[in-house]
Amino acid sequence: MSTPDSAVGTDEDRAARVALTGLAEPGHRTVWAMVQSYGAPATLERLLRGDCADARLRTSVMARRDGLDPRRFAETTMHRAERLGARIVVPSDDEWPARVESLALLELGVPGRVNHDVRPPLCIWTRGGLPLGETLDRSVAVVGARAATGYGIHVTSDLAQGLAEHGWTVVSGGAFGIDAAAHRATLTAGGRTVAVLACGVDRPYPAGNTALLEQIADVGLLISEWPPGAEPLRHRFLVRNRVIAAATAGTVVVEAAARSGAAQTMSRVLALGRAAMVVPGPVTSAMSVGCHELLRGHPDATLVTNVAHVLEAVGRIGEYLNPLERGPEHRRDSLDEESVLVLEAVPARGTITTEELASRAGLTVRTVLRRLSLLELAGLVVRRDGETALSRGSGAAP
Amino acid sequence: MSTPDSAVGTDEDRAARVALTGLAEPGHRTVWAMVQSYGAPATLERLLRGDCADARLRTSVMARRDGLDPRRFAETTMHRAERLGARIVVPSDDEWPARVESLALLELGVPGRVNHDVRPPLCIWTRGGLPLGETLDRSVAVVGARAATGYGIHVTSDLAQGLAEHGWTVVSGGAFGIDAAAHRATLTAGGRTVAVLACGVDRPYPAGNTALLEQIADVGLLISEWPPGAEPLRHRFLVRNRVIAAATAGTVVVEAAARSGAAQTMSRVLALGRAAMVVPGPVTSAMSVGCHELLRGHPDATLVTNVAHVLEAVGRIGEYLNPLERGPEHRRDSLDEESVLVLEAVPARGTITTEELASRAGLTVRTVLRRLSLLELAGLVVRRDGETALSRGSGAAP
Repeated sequence: MSTPDSAVGTDEDRAARVALTGLAEPGHRTVWAMVQSYGAPATLERLLRGDCADARLRTSVMARRDGLDPRRFAETTMHRAERLGARIVVPSDDEWPARVESLALLELGVPGRVNHDVRPPLCIWTRGGLPLGETLDRSVAVVGARAATGYGIHVTSDLAQGLAEHGWTVVSGGAFGIDAAAHRATLTAGGRTVAVLACGVDRPYPAGNTALLEQIADVGLLISEWPPGAEPLRHRFLVRNRVIAAATAGTVVVEAAARSGAAQTMSRVLALGRAAMVVPGPVTSAMSVGCHELLRGHPDATLVTNVAHVLEAVGRIGEYLNPLERGPEHRRDSLDEESVLVLEAVPARGTITTEELASRAGLTVRTVLRRLSLLELAGLVVRRDGETALSRGSGAAP
Repeated sequence: MSTPDSAVGTDEDRAARVALTGLAEPGHRTVWAMVQSYGAPATLERLLRGDCADARLRTSVMARRDGLDPRRFAETTMHRAERLGARIVVPSDDEWPARVESLALLELGVPGRVNHDVRPPLCIWTRGGLPLGETLDRSVAVVGARAATGYGIHVTSDLAQGLAEHGWTVVSGGAFGIDAAAHRATLTAGGRTVAVLACGVDRPYPAGNTALLEQIADVGLLISEWPPGAEPLRHRFLVRNRVIAAATAGTVVVEAAARSGAAQTMSRVLALGRAAMVVPGPVTSAMSVGCHELLRGHPDATLVTNVAHVLEAVGRIGEYLNPLERGPEHRRDSLDEESVLVLEAVPARGTITTEELASRAGLTVRTVLRRLSLLELAGLVVRRDGETALSRGSGAAP
């Protein structure tokens, strides 16, 4: 594996990542690709001097740079976060939620299915005392309409309570309606809940949920890719949604209106190989129309009506999340045929590109990407800069 | 094709079929197979003299024969039906609903999926002025729980009204709850409705639905495989259900309790290649638990929430039901790959067994049977005595 980024894990790397989120929106594909290739500090240097092939990014960075000194921005923001009791988590940190890296496996440019700003976060601001990665390890997202009905609130509360009682973290977006009900019921049950925000962790949004969000910061986690102070701009919610999908073992949509954003969420959840779960409702309810659309349109989405169904769905994925509980041989035994083909195509030493893997395994690149996502979660391979290698102790080496 | 039954279409054939339903329950596999091989009159002779390899059938026929003179039974029953304004429809009649013959394609002995008594009816008693076959041509079954909720009744009424308005016949079982709501809404909308009974057409069951069933006899159809006077014995309902599944283009289950008979109904609907449709409901309703079980357990079942969804599902099957509207070439063009393989394996002259077809087409017997069901509905092949031939004008002959 190449090691382009000797700064990884240093304060310089951390500060550069913060500065980069001041210059470009989180998830930007070019910025992420440059960080993968050159590391964060060198990417910051390049962008600041306009050394970047993406003309639109160059223009927007130049515009933002004029209003802000990136290094000063990083310093101020990190101080601000510190005063707030928030911390910044970067990929080299122990508490980095590794699962979000699978966003890198999403194919770009699939029209209508996922938007292009789907690269993994560069850093995650975090408020709350729980360790981020561990808290998200066994987590399920419960999301849905803001204009939820009494039915939706009831079902959400039941599901969240059940998940909490089974030791699963409940993740949601902190919004009114289903999101708030999911957070609230988890708190009531004494469980762990994470609100993923589309603005700074110091900016409770919506304001009506301020007390709830403060309570989550106290006993759960408020997290965001945007620096403290960032506003909840409209386009940020879709970008934020990808983190909810990627950071959890599965997503449950409880209520959704017709043609809501739920379809995009589910496409992404499925593309990431996570459990896509949908709660049905009365066909006479406008707030269940979107759910029924999902179930009709996505054969891989699972209809769930209670916590047992949710646990069954994430359990299948959850098995891969506790590799330490099983030996590598057992993990291999539980793989499907395609995953075994992919795993066997990874060389015993060194790295291999996805295209080569596809060619060796006799599978499409699309399939290989999906299987790699699972293999990575199972701890059998490690991926970096678009290259794959066997992880140490994967049991796959001859 | 062999023509074992020179009596087909004669009064002797008709009387023998009636007598046979006095000696054995409709759908009996051995009786049906014997009728296919020897014709109804000869089958009656054989059974009466105990010439039958099925020992259990022989014993039960002997027991019944002691209490009843089969020829006299046939005569009395036909007179009784006539007085009642009922008629008996047999396979050689123009109004025979050809679709029920596809019951012969169901595999026997699939444990837990379909019971063994699934052969086509020998005859159908019919009360009402509509032509039986034509009325069932464009029909959808709407069925569900007797202990239906207000929600279920509401959704059923909406669906039945919509189907009636689009010219589809609504078929159901005449029971309380969903069945009654389906019949009632269809009558109110001025549509055509058929109640398939598990007892004689002169015996309104349940008694509480007497007025409704009489109204159906007036403007729709009451039909039954059991002769007038027959009681609605418990085991007859499952046998009856197969006719509802087979005679319609699709079945909608609106409400069903946990572990209800709906699962068996849907398995059979799917095995017959019909549209299996399920209405979801509140996850908090016990009467929707069975529906959600169906949707979770049957990936081929379709979630429907309104009449447009139902029409879309049966439309795909309905295309095959109006072969006269399209030339044979068009019908062939619309076939899936497997059906084409099966069709091309049928010899230009003469007949072929299913096993031979499977071997020629390179498909499993199971697949061939399913495809033959469609091809038969499309009018491209004819089947008889387990043998298949091209139908005249099928466009498949060289």
